[in-house]
Amino acid sequence: MEKYRTVLNLVLKQHATLGYSFLALATAGGEQLFSVVVFSCPCNSWNFAYSMVFLLIPALVLFLLGYFVSSRTWKLCTGCCINQVKHCSKTIICRGIKIFLQITVGALVAPVTWISVALLNGTFYECGMCGYHSEYLLQTLCYNKSSDCQSNLFKLPCGHSTLPLPIQEDIRLTIRAQSQVLGWSLIAAIVVFTLASTCILRCYSPVSFLQLQFWKMYKVKENELFEQKSAEHAKELAERNLKSFFNSEGPQDIRTPNRAAWEEIS
Amino acid sequence: MEKYRTVLNLVLKQHATLGYSFLALATAGGEQLFSVVVFSCPCNSWNFAYSMVFLLIPALVLFLLGYFVSSRTWKLCTGCCINQVKHCSKTIICRGIKIFLQITVGALVAPVTWISVALLNGTFYECGMCGYHSEYLLQTLCYNKSSDCQSNLFKLPCGHSTLPLPIQEDIRLTIRAQSQVLGWSLIAAIVVFTLASTCILRCYSPVSFLQLQFWKMYKVKENELFEQKSAEHAKELAERNLKSFFNSEGPQDIRTPNRAAWEEIS
Amino acid sequence: MEKYRTVLNLVLKQHATLGYSFLALATAGGEQLFSVVVFSCPCNSWNFAYSMVFLLIPALVLFLLGYFVSSRTWKLCTGCCINQVKHCSKTIICRGIKIFLQITVGALVAPVTWISVALLNGTFYECGMCGYHSEYLLQTLCYNKSSDCQSNLFKLPCGHSTLPLPIQEDIRLTIRAQSQVLGWSLIAAIVVFTLASTCILRCYSPVSFLQLQFWKMYKVKENELFEQKSAEHAKELAERNLKSFFNSEGPQDIRTPNRAAWEEIS
Repeated sequence: MEKYRTVLNLVLKQHATLGYSFLALATAGGEQLFSVVVFSCPCNSWNFAYSMVFLLIPALVLFLLGYFVSSRTWKLCTGCCINQVKHCSKTIICRGIKIFLQITVGALVAPVTWISVALLNGTFYECGMCGYHSEYLLQTLCYNKSSDCQSNLFKLPCGHSTLPLPIQEDIRLTIRAQSQVLGWSLIAAIVVFTLASTCILRCYSPVSFLQLQFWKMYKVKENELFEQKSAEHAKELAERNLKSFFNSEGPQDIRTPNRAAWEEIS
Repeated sequence: MEKYRTVLNLVLKQHATLGYSFLALATAGGEQLFSVVVFSCPCNSWNFAYSMVFLLIPALVLFLLGYFVSSRTWKLCTGCCINQVKHCSKTIICRGIKIFLQITVGALVAPVTWISVALLNGTFYECGMCGYHSEYLLQTLCYNKSSDCQSNLFKLPCGHSTLPLPIQEDIRLTIRAQSQVLGWSLIAAIVVFTLASTCILRCYSPVSFLQLQFWKMYKVKENELFEQKSAEHAKELAERNLKSFFNSEGPQDIRTPNRAAWEEIS
Repeated sequence: MEKYRTVLNLVLKQHATLGYSFLALATAGGEQLFSVVVFSCPCNSWNFAYSMVFLLIPALVLFLLGYFVSSRTWKLCTGCCINQVKHCSKTIICRGIKIFLQITVGALVAPVTWISVALLNGTFYECGMCGYHSEYLLQTLCYNKSSDCQSNLFKLPCGHSTLPLPIQEDIRLTIRAQSQVLGWSLIAAIVVFTLASTCILRCYSPVSFLQLQFWKMYKVKENELFEQKSAEHAKELAERNLKSFFNSEGPQDIRTPNRAAWEEIS
């Protein structure tokens, strides 16, 4: 029983990591589904714009959804436009920016996964590159090939190109390789950047690691207890009000914290 | 029941080894998946760069993630930039380097598995070697073969080569054999090096084996108890604060260890 | 219930034997997997080196891992370089060598299984022998066959040989038979050697068989009790230290055995 509890504790302790992993996996699966089922390259001058829309707009949507889902966004945002005078002190703005950055990092997980998987998959990039009008790119891809390569390139992803099949295959593999190299570079850059920045931030942290662990634990416990107490308090209040309504009596006094107190703990 | 507990104890005692084995297996599976699903050799001058990207960047990413996941990294790193004056003593720096090396060894398990499995599999190496412009390599592979062998080599992994099929098969098998011999050599070198270094380190250890076992056990117990106590303390603190919030009363005093004490035990 | 306990007891009493059997089975399975999935004979001058790598390097790795896993290696090794003066007496060196030999025998189970199964299987040996340039071997295999047998031999495992099929089949069966005879000889030699050496050792043992059984039982019991006591002691120590941390009080004294005592029991 105790061993079982140990395992459960381990799962609960790592639930943030597990959550992000699940999110990343779901995004990767979604990307695979989209690129096979929904995406079909138009094979004309629209190619580049169409691919960019499939590459970037879902990423943007996921990014904004990331903000939307986080309860900390709303904790930060709620009421901050009303008492602007009060919040103008420098410390509070700094703290606001810090929290905003933390939320942003959390919200970036899904879109970055989307773009990485899309690049590793190569479907969007292939369609986009075949419609991108750049002298340099065209010359690289059509190097040592027949003259109609450049004019026929944008038809390649659909298979309507008049180029001989081996050359089509060759160009296709080159573009796909570029896409995957780009994807891996993006992943490596992000991992390096994240590790470096976290390391530096932690390095300048005034509290030690175990103290940090303790405060994290405290926050979780406080949230739990707060919810519990709130529910009790709310039930008490509702009962009193309904009682006074049905009995047509004046309500009893229950002390509720006033607005200023609420704002302070937010 | 007691026998069952013995087995469970054994599993928990070896959980580090089991964890690393699981990690290695997962990495090996991932490599197989990647080399079949994602990897497709471009068969032109990009060959070598493309293969190196698939061989090394995932290894790098896994290596950095290894650091990222380890809680000891953060224990070592947190706050070490602030009180530099305090930490400048030679003993502490030495200890820091020792811990850093230990973390590095743990973080190396996954990338080394990736590279070993990739070499044993041979797909990446085959693609890379066919695009690597080295006089020596070309002469070795194309020894006793027709003159267009050298110019056609990079098309080999895609099957577009104009060479006769038995010769293609021959070159392919040679490259794959090289890759596997390299892979085994890497594995053997790492195992020998690990055993030798661990043996030497243990050999110069000032405490005996059983004492070491005892201190390991002590560390685990201390961590467990620390977490338990922290949770209790945090709950107490949270309860007090929320009580004072809802009742609008001043908080009671609970003694919390101060910063210096936290730093000392880290 | 009692019958069930008897069976469990039997299993636990023979757990070393069962462990070695499981290890041997796992190794045999691994060998089968490797020889089918990973091994592919290059069929050129690399043949012999390639096969040797597959036959010997995994055996070496398994052998070293055997040392690595054994806790007795570390018991013997830990701290033996520091107090050399103390350990220079002849008896202790003799005892050390005896323990080292025992560990070696335990570590040899897996690599010997690997080599035996590989020889009984014959894949590695077939590939290696076809590339081994030995006058005697070539004449034996190609005895009474056409003259291009010797020059075509190394292509045989891939089926690209120009020899007529019955002759190929004939050579292949001969090589495989050699491999299996070698494998059986190895197994027989090892079993005979193990039995003989154990018999002689037991024969010169100063204690009787039942006394030996008793000492074995004592060792197991002592280990169990030692672990139990260590765990209790560690828990006590950890509890005391954490209590003193959270209450900001000085720690109470708990007597811990000193270093010399630890060394004595190791």
